[in-house]
Amino acid sequence: MARLTLSDADKQARDWFVKTTESLGCKVEVDAMGNIFAIRPGKQNSAAPTYAGSHMDTQPTGGRYDGILGVHAGIEALKTMKDNNIETEYPTGEKELSYLLKGVENMLIMRLAGVINWTNEEGARFPISMVSSGVWAGAIPLDKAYNLVEVGGGKATQLSELERIGYLGELEANHKANPIGAHFELHIEQGPILESSGGKIGAVEGVQAFRWHIITVKGKDCHTGTTDFQNRSDAMLTAAKLIVHSHNTAAELGCLASTGILTLKPGSTNTVPGFVRFSLDMRSKDDAKLQQLEDILKTEFAKIAAGEQVGQSNAEGVKGRGCTVEWQLDTDSPATNFHEDCVKCVEESAKDMLGTNSGNLVQRMTSGAGHDRIFVPCRDGVSHNPAEYCSPEDCGNGAQTLLGAMLRYDRLRAGRGV
Amino acid sequence: MARLTLSDADKQARDWFVKTTESLGCKVEVDAMGNIFAIRPGKQNSAAPTYAGSHMDTQPTGGRYDGILGVHAGIEALKTMKDNNIETEYPTGEKELSYLLKGVENMLIMRLAGVINWTNEEGARFPISMVSSGVWAGAIPLDKAYNLVEVGGGKATQLSELERIGYLGELEANHKANPIGAHFELHIEQGPILESSGGKIGAVEGVQAFRWHIITVKGKDCHTGTTDFQNRSDAMLTAAKLIVHSHNTAAELGCLASTGILTLKPGSTNTVPGFVRFSLDMRSKDDAKLQQLEDILKTEFAKIAAGEQVGQSNAEGVKGRGCTVEWQLDTDSPATNFHEDCVKCVEESAKDMLGTNSGNLVQRMTSGAGHDRIFVPCRDGVSHNPAEYCSPEDCGNGAQTLLGAMLRYDRLRAGRGV
Repeated sequence: MARLTLSDADKQARDWFVKTTESLGCKVEVDAMGNIFAIRPGKQNSAAPTYAGSHMDTQPTGGRYDGILGVHAGIEALKTMKDNNIETEYPTGEKELSYLLKGVENMLIMRLAGVINWTNEEGARFPISMVSSGVWAGAIPLDKAYNLVEVGGGKATQLSELERIGYLGELEANHKANPIGAHFELHIEQGPILESSGGKIGAVEGVQAFRWHIITVKGKDCHTGTTDFQNRSDAMLTAAKLIVHSHNTAAELGCLASTGILTLKPGSTNTVPGFVRFSLDMRSKDDAKLQQLEDILKTEFAKIAAGEQVGQSNAEGVKGRGCTVEWQLDTDSPATNFHEDCVKCVEESAKDMLGTNSGNLVQRMTSGAGHDRIFVPCRDGVSHNPAEYCSPEDCGNGAQTLLGAMLRYDRLRAGRGV
Repeated sequence: MARLTLSDADKQARDWFVKTTESLGCKVEVDAMGNIFAIRPGKQNSAAPTYAGSHMDTQPTGGRYDGILGVHAGIEALKTMKDNNIETEYPTGEKELSYLLKGVENMLIMRLAGVINWTNEEGARFPISMVSSGVWAGAIPLDKAYNLVEVGGGKATQLSELERIGYLGELEANHKANPIGAHFELHIEQGPILESSGGKIGAVEGVQAFRWHIITVKGKDCHTGTTDFQNRSDAMLTAAKLIVHSHNTAAELGCLASTGILTLKPGSTNTVPGFVRFSLDMRSKDDAKLQQLEDILKTEFAKIAAGEQVGQSNAEGVKGRGCTVEWQLDTDSPATNFHEDCVKCVEESAKDMLGTNSGNLVQRMTSGAGHDRIFVPCRDGVSHNPAEYCSPEDCGNGAQTLLGAMLRYDRLRAGRGV
């Protein structure tokens, strides 16, 4: 599946989105970043809408669920609302609707509701992910977003492509000018936790903090045959110890630590490398835990590199001449906690759907990726890959939870008069 | 220092070698691989000569000692023999000679002696090291050696360059047609063992065995943020454990294990790598020990990758879903043991020179590189680098040991009538 943002395929999907939501009675607006807002009028049309939202763009070799599932489910929610408000007060006999409406029959009093399609959420074509929601949120300047050039050697910018496909809207891309009452995003988990634990719905509490460091280990090149262990400054052996230790320490603290990139010099079978550089991606749902992990590793990496025993590191083997370790921070993204009201709306909606004795069918989770609020399982945790798969039942569960959460939140707002 | 084999600079050095050894009364012959044999007639000229030998070619950015030290010291030995046989029975007052002759005054009865310069020992220009001595020994076909093309994109072959610089000799490059009585090579250690232990001369007992394997670890790519440790098949973390374990196990068995190359896929900070490939260079002076190391690692690598605890591996951290490990043998070079007579000649010569209470000044060693018989220390173990350095005193010690070993071996042969 390839539907790169602002491509001809994306334009087709956008046109379908506009036509479909308009046919459901929505007013459709496009902002200056091409974000599309489909709004279904409610009883009180002056308040900011409660939205479902996600993205229709994909990775170059992406799956069929990442993003579009949340858009489809949002449209299905609007359709269900329309069908029920206009034609019936209660579920019709139509199977699909009765399925979606199970448990939410008494909550069909909506304020404004809507569905959003965000532009270039993936960051696959223009190299900043969540860039247009970022402009809307005030985190990324409009000019910067406009001037992003497509990856892969082409000359197109986000602005030129927005113009080319006719989705450069007039609405200001700004959360103050165009506010949102709430935003619920249904998304495949993109990880294996639900599937492996038998969970059906994840109620996401927040986005975990992450920091990306580049770790440089410096030792000394030497001949693998003529240099005994005592006289080596083996940067590769040291890096291996640090990677293992980062895992062990992160596990102990309930954090994550991962190395996805590693390069070394000089790169010859019979030369002990004097230089290794590797990425260290550390994550925690708790900023303080992440800081604790970093503090510990900064101290202990230096000790391990110097040959001291730390935990099981250097407990065996031969102490060499030691290496040095340098840290360079590349990305620092603190934890984000979603509003408890919204988390509860998702959780209650899912529990209603799956039964009160649902056990671990509904789980509170932390999102490992950058966004999302309602998770459904995906097979083997695979995403960003054509093998990505979410069963029809799980898609349905997610859609029903989304609708229920929107309706619950609407009722909450109505009760508070906001 | 750059004196690539068969270059103009090498031709200059060769011309100097021929002229110098001829001026010492040597008969000089060049074989079909450009190996140069300078032979000083002795009392019995029908027997195969006792040689000093090494190489004058260097790495592209090599040092000033690797190779040429052994050639220079060999010529100095011949000069000392000539000066003593022809002009005096005993040391002259000349400082240099008296220094070289200390302890060997009573052994100046030589059979044929000589010095060899071997072509392309480094393998830096034409990509097989020790190729011309290999042809002489019958280990490498002449055609294969002739057809080697220079590295770096040029078109020259070893044959074309031998012709170009005029060193394609008529002597057959073969150990049967052109036998050697013994071969003593003085060489810098190219490692730090002598220097760090206070040793002055290494009497090399043999060349250690080595095997080069390519290890492939297969896991599964996954998102670093969305995949907990339990659900990962982290090929990089596994490879790191294997590298550390190879070191620990080799250290326990008195072997060496080194990783000089490591590549991974897909190579993104926020993707746990599903594929890692690394080189494993294992060495031991004992073939059986090397086999034992390999057997142990083959069993234990698989266990560690599967998440089992082996020694300190997997003693901490979280057991994931496991990875698989594949081995591929690239190079298998069994151990070579030098003849004890020759080793003793070196050892006794060095001990005579340095005194009978020399302690660890003279050490029996195993060569980590592919050849060499007499080691002298080099600063910090550095070689193949312009920073390579061997002190004048150590060069002198090596030259005197070389001369003494040649004379001792000559006396041994005379006593046995061979």
